[in-house]
Amino acid sequence: MTIAFQGEPGAYSEAAAQLFAPGSDVMPCRSFEDVFAAVANGRASRGILPMENSVGGSIHRNYDLLVEHELPIVGEVELAVDHCLLGRRGSTLAGITTVYSHPQALAQCEEYLRSLGQIEIVAVYDTAGGAKMVADGSRVDAGAIASRRAADLFGLEVLADGVQDYASNLTRFALISRSTEHVADANKTSLVFALKSTPGALFRALSCFALRDINLTKMESRPIRGRPWEYMFYVDVDIARDSLAYGRAVTQLGEFAQWVRTLGSYRAWA
Amino acid sequence: MTIAFQGEPGAYSEAAAQLFAPGSDVMPCRSFEDVFAAVANGRASRGILPMENSVGGSIHRNYDLLVEHELPIVGEVELAVDHCLLGRRGSTLAGITTVYSHPQALAQCEEYLRSLGQIEIVAVYDTAGGAKMVADGSRVDAGAIASRRAADLFGLEVLADGVQDYASNLTRFALISRSTEHVADANKTSLVFALKSTPGALFRALSCFALRDINLTKMESRPIRGRPWEYMFYVDVDIARDSLAYGRAVTQLGEFAQWVRTLGSYRAWA
Repeated sequence: MTIAFQGEPGAYSEAAAQLFAPGSDVMPCRSFEDVFAAVANGRASRGILPMENSVGGSIHRNYDLLVEHELPIVGEVELAVDHCLLGRRGSTLAGITTVYSHPQALAQCEEYLRSLGQIEIVAVYDTAGGAKMVADGSRVDAGAIASRRAADLFGLEVLADGVQDYASNLTRFALISRSTEHVADANKTSLVFALKSTPGALFRALSCFALRDINLTKMESRPIRGRPWEYMFYVDVDIARDSLAYGRAVTQLGEFAQWVRTLGSYRAWA
Repeated sequence: MTIAFQGEPGAYSEAAAQLFAPGSDVMPCRSFEDVFAAVANGRASRGILPMENSVGGSIHRNYDLLVEHELPIVGEVELAVDHCLLGRRGSTLAGITTVYSHPQALAQCEEYLRSLGQIEIVAVYDTAGGAKMVADGSRVDAGAIASRRAADLFGLEVLADGVQDYASNLTRFALISRSTEHVADANKTSLVFALKSTPGALFRALSCFALRDINLTKMESRPIRGRPWEYMFYVDVDIARDSLAYGRAVTQLGEFAQWVRTLGSYRAWA
């Protein structure tokens, strides 16, 4: 199995891919769009996408891309994220004046970064990419927030470990595939639906699940582009797509929603 | 009235402040945190915060900051956003190889930027700040996506106008104040509540509004930091805080939610 991920080797997405399928091949991609493309054209059998962090929240771009593409979710994995502050050999914690990392990682280490005093914070497209920039440069006052594995890969020193503000810092990843696969032990389903902007619309939509004791574990709203202040809703429910209750819930939801699409049914990680 | 906003002069937030209170003084701030600080310490009588764009979605950072601070929302304004591609005198559209702008503006012009072919896209902290960078530099191959007013302020040329992907591109701003003010003609209220992760929790919470025919115009979920996969929900309802129905809805919501906080009641812009 080859799993496409966004970022440089040493990125958390790569670690999540190894956690999901140990020993599988991984394929670094420049962007999330490239991950979708690699799966769509068959160069990778799976793509792995960070969907949500327990501190920073959703990675909305990936929710949007799931709707723009037709690649189903076939699995998920949760990774405990342990951020380190990395620097070149000869760097000291006190000497760091600039820190590079992905905006989500920076947000997860906000209080720690503030404790470093007047430093410049620079957002880059990927945590391991920030580590690579520091390694490729010559500055001993530049640091990166990334994984310990990124330090090993790029020959950097770990100046501080566990620098995330909350010890319990989890990122949930979705695995996408080229075509729908029957996951025998599926117990979770992701779907998306659009509602008209009418009073009680969301309440009626949620009733389809609540009245059947189907638990929502996640809900995210996103704008419908070109239709100001109308929304799509992404929902995760703790039931398989092929269950009777899910089928009935979605049939009823079809009465209230403008459209409904099941994004995939898979085994919950927890 | 002095209104604090994030960004350089020429930022869309500054235009929104002028739309809300024509002729008022404005105070540029480096960050959203600085806008909150300026209002909290009385240097500004109001702060203006972009909350949501009709294409790009919510500015989640500001939702988080509203909960971290105790500054009530006292008004809102909607601004039609018309993005321009700006360059130095002597620049041509065909010659642009790098484009600077805020990530939200870049997202709103995604298809347009793709149509420019192989260019480098650089995220900066503010649209007008990107325009200033181009103006302060010497490159004729560098462009910025910002407002026409930013072009005037920084002496740049408008290489292309209306470059947003959707003609109808609206940003909604919230006005914050130091203390709660009674807005006589209020017809909208923002609130936030936290729910336990139990089946049907959100459905029960929304019933408090739906059963009283109170319309939700917006709902946003955000993680509760340090408690993985538990959420706060931000809701806008089209009713004043001092109405009987709102009081009853919030009393009932208090039974189901871990906590409820009204963020402000104000006059809807539309």
